Amino acid sequence: MTKGRLEAFSDGVIAIIITIMVLEIKVPHGSDLMALKPLIPVVISYVLSFIYIGIYWNNHHHMLHAAERIDGSVLWANLYLLFWLSLIPFVTAWMGENHFAPVTMMMYGFIMLMCALAYYILQTRIIAKNGKDSKLSQALGADFKGKASLVLYTLAIGAAFIHEWISAAIYVLVAVMWLIPDKRIEKVIDN
Amino acid sequence: MTKGRLEAFSDGVIAIIITIMVLEIKVPHGSDLMALKPLIPVVISYVLSFIYIGIYWNNHHHMLHAAERIDGSVLWANLYLLFWLSLIPFVTAWMGENHFAPVTMMMYGFIMLMCALAYYILQTRIIAKNGKDSKLSQALGADFKGKASLVLYTLAIGAAFIHEWISAAIYVLVAVMWLIPDKRIEKVIDN
Amino acid sequence: MTKGRLEAFSDGVIAIIITIMVLEIKVPHGSDLMALKPLIPVVISYVLSFIYIGIYWNNHHHMLHAAERIDGSVLWANLYLLFWLSLIPFVTAWMGENHFAPVTMMMYGFIMLMCALAYYILQTRIIAKNGKDSKLSQALGADFKGKASLVLYTLAIGAAFIHEWISAAIYVLVAVMWLIPDKRIEKVIDN
Amino acid sequence: MTKGRLEAFSDGVIAIIITIMVLEIKVPHGSDLMALKPLIPVVISYVLSFIYIGIYWNNHHHMLHAAERIDGSVLWANLYLLFWLSLIPFVTAWMGENHFAPVTMMMYGFIMLMCALAYYILQTRIIAKNGKDSKLSQALGADFKGKASLVLYTLAIGAAFIHEWISAAIYVLVAVMWLIPDKRIEKVIDN
Repeated sequence: MTKGRLEAFSDGVIAIIITIMVLEIKVPHGSDLMALKPLIPVVISYVLSFIYIGIYWNNHHHMLHAAERIDGSVLWANLYLLFWLSLIPFVTAWMGENHFAPVTMMMYGFIMLMCALAYYILQTRIIAKNGKDSKLSQALGADFKGKASLVLYTLAIGAAFIHEWISAAIYVLVAVMWLIPDKRIEKVIDN
Repeated sequence: MTKGRLEAFSDGVIAIIITIMVLEIKVPHGSDLMALKPLIPVVISYVLSFIYIGIYWNNHHHMLHAAERIDGSVLWANLYLLFWLSLIPFVTAWMGENHFAPVTMMMYGFIMLMCALAYYILQTRIIAKNGKDSKLSQALGADFKGKASLVLYTLAIGAAFIHEWISAAIYVLVAVMWLIPDKRIEKVIDN
Repeated sequence: MTKGRLEAFSDGVIAIIITIMVLEIKVPHGSDLMALKPLIPVVISYVLSFIYIGIYWNNHHHMLHAAERIDGSVLWANLYLLFWLSLIPFVTAWMGENHFAPVTMMMYGFIMLMCALAYYILQTRIIAKNGKDSKLSQALGADFKGKASLVLYTLAIGAAFIHEWISAAIYVLVAVMWLIPDKRIEKVIDN
Repeated sequence: MTKGRLEAFSDGVIAIIITIMVLEIKVPHGSDLMALKPLIPVVISYVLSFIYIGIYWNNHHHMLHAAERIDGSVLWANLYLLFWLSLIPFVTAWMGENHFAPVTMMMYGFIMLMCALAYYILQTRIIAKNGKDSKLSQALGADFKGKASLVLYTLAIGAAFIHEWISAAIYVLVAVMWLIPDKRIEKVIDN
């Protein structure tokens, strides 16, 4: 089984998810700068989710590049990940339009947690198919970032009940953690 | 004629179909968990259709992977399949927003039946081009699942007049039937 | 310059055009079959435009498959074609929602004429780059269908002022003419 | 690292951006030609942005074709460019629906300036990875057009406070400047 179409289909779905989010930034009726003011929380949540989806695409790109073999279970684990990613535009818009209300922040964390779990399952399936000595397995190592994300999302869901800005800070922290270049996979592949 | 662009175009259309369905999950005005309650039937119908389209993409992937030759009639049979698949978001939203009302369940079954028939036609055209001794033809064998789906969709359309939950049960049954791994094509190709 | 990305980008745009048309089939509020009745003209215009875009994709696929070389002018001629194709969803919805009113039928013909002209320009640019003795040039021959389409669309625009059904009949005629298998390019390539 | 998926993902996102803009041309209720009149500014802004995105796609195509190596920083610079490009449909619709009001023209220039800066960053990252003696670096030369665009967009933002048509004239000028064939990259690659 070749991975070409799996990559192409995933690229298509992720490209659409990242782009339809922008449709939630509704064109305002006024034509002055004040007309854009109510859009600020919508744009902020768009930027956050754009970065998250960008991180997923980046990691997905590296992971499948390192994978040498895939099977039917990988196809389904991939679809399961795409399902949770497809709910990001909804929860992003809900959060932005309600100015980061606690329940919407909690729901954002829940969807992010499910995406992270789905990614973990996909990663596990690919390693199972490629072997513990595969390039991918070596590249991931202890997978600190993956595990830390699961913990942090869970904390953010709970923290939304105390104060929504704690959750917000955690979401930004997770994004920054992933944005710091992770040379592991690149290095192992180049060797 | 190469199959690369046929796969790429189909991937594009299926990726869009599976993703625009999510636009029907309209962002609610409230910001508490109760605001999400009216969305439950919409989300359930989204999950069902996501799985169905995932199954179609999976099977389409395997079928074209096994095909060695295509011709103009395959291109058109493929477009005919994409046409019926493109109506799934409409019927999914209609069903979800009307809380699985009998006529909407019947219509869902009708669209699913037409998709299954279109897939059958595409499969027949590909086998005709590749020969009865081709890998694809051997991989399909008696094509039990394909034929059972046609019968079950027809039953579900009729059952909607008795009680809509019978149809619902049948749609779940068909999805589960296809989700059970089908190693036929993979095995034949690997040999 | 390679044609791979030109094909991929065109596939993406055409896949989106053909799929967003379905968003114009708005989900009705009622849950009985009568609720679907007002959608009939919208669905009919969707079917017509789906077939037209399918024909364009098919012909585009064959033309670029036969092309051996492309240059900057081909990229721009291709974008010019995609621009006119991108207006098809608008004019399809306008025509369907207004039950094939004369002016909407005329406008449909105008967009189709511009698409056909843009396709002709693209074809001319590709032949200019590949030479009169190229496979593509031989495959097209006198290009009867291409020229007949231009004449028929012009007639349909005028006929809408007499009676809209004359235009409708011409649009169906053009679609049927293109659906009849055109073995020219396939044959020349296979030799 | 291969550039195939980077190109495919960019093609997907750009194809969606260029196509969803057309959704802003809302289907009018009337069925005569006068019903189309209010759409004229929306269509004009669509044409302008279609050309701009077409230019970006064209240049992106050539730049990545010339690039021989990419790394993680190129992936992120590319996502940063796609982010700013994704805001073009919003600002295009805002400008069109408000009949080119000064603030909307200024905002259009701002988004265009950010796109141009993002493109410049991407170009710089690719040259850094490929070396100053690479084909791409030679092909760009002094990059007159790129630098002139940055200056012209800045001028257009300021000019909107004097009269919006000065900004409009500058946007058309930049588009025309890029439409004039730029044989640099093509030539260097062909040698």
